[in-house]
Amino acid sequence: MNGADSSGIRVFVTGGTFDKEYDELRGVLFFRDTHVPEMLRLGRCRVEVSVETLLMIDSLEMTAAHRAAIADHCRRCQETRLVVTHGTDTMVETAAVLADAVAGKTIVLTGAMVPYAFGSSDGLFNLGSALSFVQTLPPGVYLAMNGRCFAWDNVRKNRATGTFESIR
Amino acid sequence: MNGADSSGIRVFVTGGTFDKEYDELRGVLFFRDTHVPEMLRLGRCRVEVSVETLLMIDSLEMTAAHRAAIADHCRRCQETRLVVTHGTDTMVETAAVLADAVAGKTIVLTGAMVPYAFGSSDGLFNLGSALSFVQTLPPGVYLAMNGRCFAWDNVRKNRATGTFESIR
Amino acid sequence: MNGADSSGIRVFVTGGTFDKEYDELRGVLFFRDTHVPEMLRLGRCRVEVSVETLLMIDSLEMTAAHRAAIADHCRRCQETRLVVTHGTDTMVETAAVLADAVAGKTIVLTGAMVPYAFGSSDGLFNLGSALSFVQTLPPGVYLAMNGRCFAWDNVRKNRATGTFESIR
Amino acid sequence: MNGADSSGIRVFVTGGTFDKEYDELRGVLFFRDTHVPEMLRLGRCRVEVSVETLLMIDSLEMTAAHRAAIADHCRRCQETRLVVTHGTDTMVETAAVLADAVAGKTIVLTGAMVPYAFGSSDGLFNLGSALSFVQTLPPGVYLAMNGRCFAWDNVRKNRATGTFESIR
Repeated sequence: MNGADSSGIRVFVTGGTFDKEYDELRGVLFFRDTHVPEMLRLGRCRVEVSVETLLMIDSLEMTAAHRAAIADHCRRCQETRLVVTHGTDTMVETAAVLADAVAGKTIVLTGAMVPYAFGSSDGLFNLGSALSFVQTLPPGVYLAMNGRCFAWDNVRKNRATGTFESIR
Repeated sequence: MNGADSSGIRVFVTGGTFDKEYDELRGVLFFRDTHVPEMLRLGRCRVEVSVETLLMIDSLEMTAAHRAAIADHCRRCQETRLVVTHGTDTMVETAAVLADAVAGKTIVLTGAMVPYAFGSSDGLFNLGSALSFVQTLPPGVYLAMNGRCFAWDNVRKNRATGTFESIR
Repeated sequence: MNGADSSGIRVFVTGGTFDKEYDELRGVLFFRDTHVPEMLRLGRCRVEVSVETLLMIDSLEMTAAHRAAIADHCRRCQETRLVVTHGTDTMVETAAVLADAVAGKTIVLTGAMVPYAFGSSDGLFNLGSALSFVQTLPPGVYLAMNGRCFAWDNVRKNRATGTFESIR
Repeated sequence: MNGADSSGIRVFVTGGTFDKEYDELRGVLFFRDTHVPEMLRLGRCRVEVSVETLLMIDSLEMTAAHRAAIADHCRRCQETRLVVTHGTDTMVETAAVLADAVAGKTIVLTGAMVPYAFGSSDGLFNLGSALSFVQTLPPGVYLAMNGRCFAWDNVRKNRATGTFESIR
């Protein structure tokens, strides 16, 4: 908050609903490039952020090897404040892997229920939220969705409502 | 963060660019109702938030009496975590008044450079950010704009760039 | 154009990309209600238009029975100027059926390459176009897409480019 | 429609609400570049259109000299089908000047009640409409707004409702 983070924030992109687009020739959803830089421009973001795309997949397709690679990037990057964009379906699983593998860093996972490229997305709200939580929370792994922030070991996705909730 | 705030968050609306609309008959900008509830729906906000409109004015028109009334509402409401939406031109002045008048509460002022009703607004990003900072910061008065958060006595608006920056 | 059409324009909705939405719980595209009335409001449409939903399906699922029913509605309605919203994949087939089954009416089929509910749709442009062509063209069946208008027997969809083109 | 117009359509831009933008530093509306090419891309327009900016002003500031210059461009360009984007306040006056000065061409004036750059504009609908009317109407000067098309000498703007209506 007060300039302690000279190294800025690293955003690791892994895909998820956040970045889905509509393929107008085939009529299906697909991934191309991440929208995170465009979202940061729209938010006129003035925080020092560097964005790196690690994956561009649906989180249902994420494997243990993918998660190990994400953890590896989180460990090895110089920043200590990290945001990971991620599909909501397995965000909790990835958070658990990161909690086990990365120490001494604040990691906030976030995503969206509706693709940013569509008009009515929660993505910009969630990105603003995740970038704020990551600046103020102590080291640990968190999920930030829809204005709330959960510790990685106290959250589950309620598939009936499409929202995240505390376990305890 | 962990359920300590049983009273939820209070959002006080005062107007500002955030809530400006386009009057298609007269071709000018004007105020009608606040867009904050619609923005919370778009963000699928799951935090307990109650929204109250105190003013609906351009912050250049804000008087000492207006600021005293805002401070009064901040003091008297039951919530201890407050977000105040505000025009950017005099946001710093209002923050100083609130810092002087309200103790023991976390107050985050936020706003936008572009009206939410227009396509390219930073408003949703800023609202997500303010609602997150207010949940994690200790009592005090802050400005949250464009991903950054400033203590009330260490910020000014740079009118040439339209951005907020630290004084020190 | 000059008030000759006291009966106004009838819009028959059949679904297609035009009306697809994103199901945020399941992450798939689906149909719910038509967006045509909302689009007419956005266009501040001042033409007398009555909208009727006949189907809400992907045009790849359209059967001969569906087409016969659409033709029947076109024949039996009192209006002589009709717009039919339709998926692009089989729009040409339906146009041929209507040309065979309906006489003495101006029928314009239109659609979109991107769902209206998504930010970057051509739908509003196409709807404005179709409603204009239908007011000025003589009886017959036409396809209006992306600013062009084709007679039903001189058009095909180029699936590689996603655009319609003349055969001759 | 059937390839008769080998010369395509010329769009002359003069400004108006269509092209107004929000200046986020000063909080006012202003003109910069026209949005017409972007709108044609969004509409995936496949008609041969060439866009030329003549003016970029509010139509209340339009003088007789401005109108004479527009008429001159309409007369001298090689295309016979012309669309003129224009502020709604004096669109009727300009139409009368063009009707007096230009013969043998189909000229359609159009505009918008809300700037295209804002989310809720009628501009894309009107542009699709104007480009369609201009392809099918005989030589003459017309106004196309909100799905309707008026002959230049049978239209007025109703300032109370913000809509155009027939005089007779």
